[in-house]
Amino acid sequence: MSQNAFDQKKASILNEINSPQPDLSPKGSIDELCIPIMELINSHKDMVTTSSCSGRVSVFAEGTKNYNEETKVGGKGQGGRWLFVSHDSTNVIGWLDRLIHDSEVDDIIVNTNDSEDNSKFDGATRYILYKYEPFILHVKCRNFEIASKLYNTSMGCGFRESGIGSNNIVAIRINIKLDTPIGFINEGSNRLAFFVTERYIRLLDNITLTKFSDNAKKIKQLYNKIESDIIQKRDPGNAVEKKLTETKEERRQRKMKEGLERQRLLNETKSNEL
Amino acid sequence: MSQNAFDQKKASILNEINSPQPDLSPKGSIDELCIPIMELINSHKDMVTTSSCSGRVSVFAEGTKNYNEETKVGGKGQGGRWLFVSHDSTNVIGWLDRLIHDSEVDDIIVNTNDSEDNSKFDGATRYILYKYEPFILHVKCRNFEIASKLYNTSMGCGFRESGIGSNNIVAIRINIKLDTPIGFINEGSNRLAFFVTERYIRLLDNITLTKFSDNAKKIKQLYNKIESDIIQKRDPGNAVEKKLTETKEERRQRKMKEGLERQRLLNETKSNEL
Repeated sequence: MSQNAFDQKKASILNEINSPQPDLSPKGSIDELCIPIMELINSHKDMVTTSSCSGRVSVFAEGTKNYNEETKVGGKGQGGRWLFVSHDSTNVIGWLDRLIHDSEVDDIIVNTNDSEDNSKFDGATRYILYKYEPFILHVKCRNFEIASKLYNTSMGCGFRESGIGSNNIVAIRINIKLDTPIGFINEGSNRLAFFVTERYIRLLDNITLTKFSDNAKKIKQLYNKIESDIIQKRDPGNAVEKKLTETKEERRQRKMKEGLERQRLLNETKSNEL
Repeated sequence: MSQNAFDQKKASILNEINSPQPDLSPKGSIDELCIPIMELINSHKDMVTTSSCSGRVSVFAEGTKNYNEETKVGGKGQGGRWLFVSHDSTNVIGWLDRLIHDSEVDDIIVNTNDSEDNSKFDGATRYILYKYEPFILHVKCRNFEIASKLYNTSMGCGFRESGIGSNNIVAIRINIKLDTPIGFINEGSNRLAFFVTERYIRLLDNITLTKFSDNAKKIKQLYNKIESDIIQKRDPGNAVEKKLTETKEERRQRKMKEGLERQRLLNETKSNEL
């Protein structure tokens, strides 16, 4: 990718990020917690963020799966659905109560004690999975040198599952996870049946709160490390600190101005190409 | 790294792999399931495997943790210990019974129902974690070109958490996991207390068996893909297929011969350097 192609790609991505239109993610917008670190990274001329998730809790009901035929690992079948998903730790407590009172859910049995034995569960069982998935960020870099620098900074900061992929895109990943089967979908009755007690689910919720908080600490640590090792080394009188102390309204104004500027640049680049 | 330095490093690594001495892993030897894919990769002159795990189930009791002070995420504190760990799916069923009869474990309460409320659990709680961790393999490549090829092959095969790291080392990773808190260590009594029932643990064990089998399928798939896309493209009359049909004794003989040959090469390289 030529210098110019990277700049054009970056302008186009930033334009999307700053657009008031919903993005392509299920949630349709960038997670609040990601914004400072994304802005920090995007303030560097050789990096641009391409996708992000700040960390989330979810309760997922798997779809129908092919058994005996080749099972697609990681794919959760057709018709799977989220019973609960949130990027916001304040939504964690109470999700089960809200689900129970949700009119679209037929019937829920908590701590099922039917005489069902385990032998009924097999590769085709549609489980209900309780998950915590941490922060993940993809960053496209202008060249391999800066990609390596970002990779090493991330690894050094505890994001031990990071890696460089195709086209100098760095995936920044950490291993703060929960992945717990808590129930299954009873195919006969279409009921949600939980293996575990409400008390155990409240316990998982509490552990999830710790994960959210550990995760936020690690994002802040990574922010500081990228700032000191990559941003400030390049530009000691950096302008990034300023952004963190602006008010919401100031930020809105600045973003609007920056968006217009980027749009202008993008249009310019495009018309130059014609 | 010069051509020669890579060759020397590869010879030294292969020498360790083929040594009868225990390696540095907790288990001290290479997992059976990894051997074919490692041999396949090592048959390519530009790649050498540097570490591997075929996938494993574990039950881990966390050590003491600092609370309120900065918590080290991912670190499980001082004095943590495995209550059970195995790379072999045939050991899964029955681990709890074996643990209960283990004289070194003081006392176990399954499905604890003390009037303890969840509020006693916090960031300092030492949990008992039930985990399944899938296959992971690190491969050092001679250059970025072959590292990229291996990375793309792995990603295309469903190993979506792969990445290239420093020194052209590719980490091949997949997301087939379980990570479930099943109990805690009661600090007062030093007892292991389980939140969940034996029935739930048997259920986790069954899910783990499915994970072992999905994981083995994915390793086989990756083997085939690396063989067809990297090995055979280089050397259409490849000698690898042969290795898979040899008997254990033939393999032992061949390994011994290869080991001696490598030792000779390594000694040669070393004496050339003096």
